[in-house]
Amino acid sequence: MDVREHVLEKARRAKGASRKLANLSSKIRNDALMAMADAILDKMDRIIEANEEDVKNAKASGRSSAFIDRLTLTESRIKAMADGIREVAALPDPVGEVIRMWRRPNGLLIGQVRVPLGVIAFIYESRPNVTADGIALAVKSANSIILRGGSEAIRSNMAIWKLMAEVGYSSGLPNGCIEMVEVTDRAAVLELGKLEGLVDVIIPRGGPELIRTVVSNSTIPVIRHEAGNCHVYVDEYADLPMAVKICYNAKVQRPGVCNAMETMLVHEAIAERFLPMMIEEFEKAGVEIRGCERTREIVPHVKPATEEDWWTEYLDLILAVKVVKSIDEAIDHINHYGSGHSDAIVTENYTNAQRFLWEVDSAAVYVNASTRFTDGNQFGLGAEAGISTQKLHARGPVGAAELTTTKYIIYGTGQIRE
Amino acid sequence: MDVREHVLEKARRAKGASRKLANLSSKIRNDALMAMADAILDKMDRIIEANEEDVKNAKASGRSSAFIDRLTLTESRIKAMADGIREVAALPDPVGEVIRMWRRPNGLLIGQVRVPLGVIAFIYESRPNVTADGIALAVKSANSIILRGGSEAIRSNMAIWKLMAEVGYSSGLPNGCIEMVEVTDRAAVLELGKLEGLVDVIIPRGGPELIRTVVSNSTIPVIRHEAGNCHVYVDEYADLPMAVKICYNAKVQRPGVCNAMETMLVHEAIAERFLPMMIEEFEKAGVEIRGCERTREIVPHVKPATEEDWWTEYLDLILAVKVVKSIDEAIDHINHYGSGHSDAIVTENYTNAQRFLWEVDSAAVYVNASTRFTDGNQFGLGAEAGISTQKLHARGPVGAAELTTTKYIIYGTGQIRE
Repeated sequence: MDVREHVLEKARRAKGASRKLANLSSKIRNDALMAMADAILDKMDRIIEANEEDVKNAKASGRSSAFIDRLTLTESRIKAMADGIREVAALPDPVGEVIRMWRRPNGLLIGQVRVPLGVIAFIYESRPNVTADGIALAVKSANSIILRGGSEAIRSNMAIWKLMAEVGYSSGLPNGCIEMVEVTDRAAVLELGKLEGLVDVIIPRGGPELIRTVVSNSTIPVIRHEAGNCHVYVDEYADLPMAVKICYNAKVQRPGVCNAMETMLVHEAIAERFLPMMIEEFEKAGVEIRGCERTREIVPHVKPATEEDWWTEYLDLILAVKVVKSIDEAIDHINHYGSGHSDAIVTENYTNAQRFLWEVDSAAVYVNASTRFTDGNQFGLGAEAGISTQKLHARGPVGAAELTTTKYIIYGTGQIRE
Repeated sequence: MDVREHVLEKARRAKGASRKLANLSSKIRNDALMAMADAILDKMDRIIEANEEDVKNAKASGRSSAFIDRLTLTESRIKAMADGIREVAALPDPVGEVIRMWRRPNGLLIGQVRVPLGVIAFIYESRPNVTADGIALAVKSANSIILRGGSEAIRSNMAIWKLMAEVGYSSGLPNGCIEMVEVTDRAAVLELGKLEGLVDVIIPRGGPELIRTVVSNSTIPVIRHEAGNCHVYVDEYADLPMAVKICYNAKVQRPGVCNAMETMLVHEAIAERFLPMMIEEFEKAGVEIRGCERTREIVPHVKPATEEDWWTEYLDLILAVKVVKSIDEAIDHINHYGSGHSDAIVTENYTNAQRFLWEVDSAAVYVNASTRFTDGNQFGLGAEAGISTQKLHARGPVGAAELTTTKYIIYGTGQIRE
C-alpha cells in the first residue's frame, strides 16, 4: 500500500463528510454516540478478540508488564469506554453556542457562534481506549476525525474504530467522518502533517518524541500536549497536615502522569518542621528525594539535587525538593523551570494565595488542592483529547468545546459602509 | 549591527518586561495609553519631520502616488491616531475577565480567566499609523510587543515608537515592554521566527509574500491574515434595489481592502432583471466585469471569466460574476473557491438567510449587509491587529481580547484525588 495515497484518501473522505456533519442536529450526533456505546457492549467479543492478538504480540516482543497492562482491554475497561462515550453524549452541545451577540448603532446584529473546526487528525500511542475517546469527542464537536494509533494496539484500535464507524454511519452520521489510518509506520504521521487544506488541526497525544516529530514536520496547526513539570509550593503559612496530604497525593497517587508533582518548594520558615515528616512519608512510599543544600542540612541522608533536576519531568517516584526564602522565589522558580502545566500553593494566607494564582503563568494554578485534578473529567468537561500547555487556541484540558472555532453571523437590514 | 544579536536583545528585553506588565493594574495601562495619545498631539512635529524624510525617499525611489498617499502622515491623520489610542483605552479590559467559574461536587471552585499571551512580534508593512495601533493593542492586552515595520516607513515608525515608549515608561509601564526592531532587512523577520521561548505569537500584517515568509520560517505560532476572496450572493428572493446598493458598496467603496467583494453570485431566476442594471452601475464606477457564460448571454459585452477568476482576490476595480441555479450552488461555490473571510447573501427569504449563515464556512457571514463591515472598529471591538482567516485561536478581527490566552485558577480546601 502506498502510504501517501492511503493517507490522502482517508483525508479526502473525512473532508468530504465534514460539511455534512457540521450541519447535523446535535440530536442525531448524540443518538449516534449512544448507539456506539451500546454496540461496544453488545459486540465486546470482537474487541476482546482483536485485543488478545495485540497483547500476544506485545508479550512475544518482550514488552514490560506495565505496557501490557495499559494495552489490555478487560470487560470492565470496555464498560468504562462505553460509559465514557455516554458521558460525552450527555454534555451540552458546544456547536451552535452563541458566545455573545450585540447590536451596533447602525442596526447590525452581530453574533459570535461556535462552529466545528472541520477535520481533526488525532495521533496517539498505546492505550486503545483513546480510540473511543477521540471518536466520541469528534462526533460531539461535529468534526471529522482521522485516527492514527500506535502499532502495538493496531488490531484493538481497528476493531473499536470499525464498530463505532459502522454504527455511527447507520445512525445517520455522514460516511467518511470517522476514518483511521491503517498503516502504522512513521511515514503516515509525516504525511498527515502535509495535508494543508484537508486537515484543520493535528493533535498528537503521546511521548515527547512523537510530539516533536509532529511539530517540526507539520505546516498544519498543532495543539500540543507537552511536558508536565508541576510544582507544589508549601508556604510559610501552610496548614502543614494539609500540605503533607496534598504533596503526597500530587507525587504518589499516580506518578507516571503529566499532572503529578515533580518539584516541591518549601518556605524556609517551616522547612525544619515540615521536611522531616514529609520526607518520611515519601520514603515509606518508595519516593527518591533529591534535595537542595538547605534540604540536606535538615534531612542529611537525601541525595543532592543538581540544576538538571529543576528542569526534569521524572514521571516516576522521584522528587526534587528546594527550600525557598519567599513566595517571590517560589513563583520565579516555577515561572523559570516549570512547563506551564499545573502548579499549586498550600497556604492559609489570603494575599499569598491570590498572588500565586495570578502570578504563576501556567495552564492550571491551584490553592490548597492537588495538581492531580488537571483533567477534563475532574474539571467536569467530560473526556479530553489531551492537556494543552500552549497558549494559543486551547490551554489546559482539551474537551469538545476546545475542538471548535467561532464565526461571526451578522443580521443586516440593508446596511452599507459610508 | 549583527541582526541576530539585535533582534535577540530586543526580545530579551520584551520578555523580561512581560511578567511585570501582566501584573499591572488596568488603570496604569489605560492612563499610559491616554498619556501616549496626548504626547502624539503635543509632539506631532517630531513625527511629521521624520515622516517627511520617509516621503522624500519614497518619491526619490519612484513609488506610486497611492503608495505615497498611504505613507504620508498629515495633522488630521495624526489626530486620528491619537483618537484611535484613546478608543482602545476606553474599551473594557480583556485581562482578568473570568469567562466562567463553577464549583465541582468535591468543592473545588474552578475559574477560567483571561491572561496576556506574553510577548507578541508584530510584523507589518508601509502605513506608519499601524505602529500606534499595535502598541495600543499590546498595552491594552498587557502584552510586550516587538514591532518590525517596513523599510519605507522606518523613520516615521521609529519616531512614533520612541515617543509612545518614552511616555509609556514614564507612566509606569515596565521598561522593555515596547520594543522595535531597528533594522529593516528580511533577515530580521527570519530571526523573529526562531525565538521560541521568548516570543509567544507572531502576527504578520501585509501582503501574501510577507505572510508566506513568516509562516514557512517560524516555529512560533502565527496568527495569519490571508487573502479575502469575498462574495455577495443575490438570492432569487432578494430585494433588488437593496442588492444593488449592497453589491455596489462591497465592490466600489474601497476596492483595495480584504473585505471588498471579488465575486458576485446571482440566482438565475432574477439574473435577467438584476444583471443589466447592476452592471450598468458598476461600469459607471469603472469596474471591469468578468462574467460566466450565462452572464454574457444577458449582458453580452462583458469579458469572459475563466476558472482562475473564481480564485482571485483582485483588490482592484474588477469583479467576477456568476449566475447560479440555486442557493446550494452558491454555498458550494463560496465554500470551494472562497478564502473564508467575509461573504453575504441578499434575500428576503427567511430559510435561505438562515441556511446561508450556518452553511457558509467563513469568519464573517452576512445577511443583507455589505461585506465591508468586517473590521474591529465596525464590529465595536476597537482597533485590530488584523483579520484572521485561520480557525485556530482567533477568527475574524483580532482585537485586544484575541491577544489574550486563558488559564484555570482553582480554589481548594485541601482536596486530593482518590
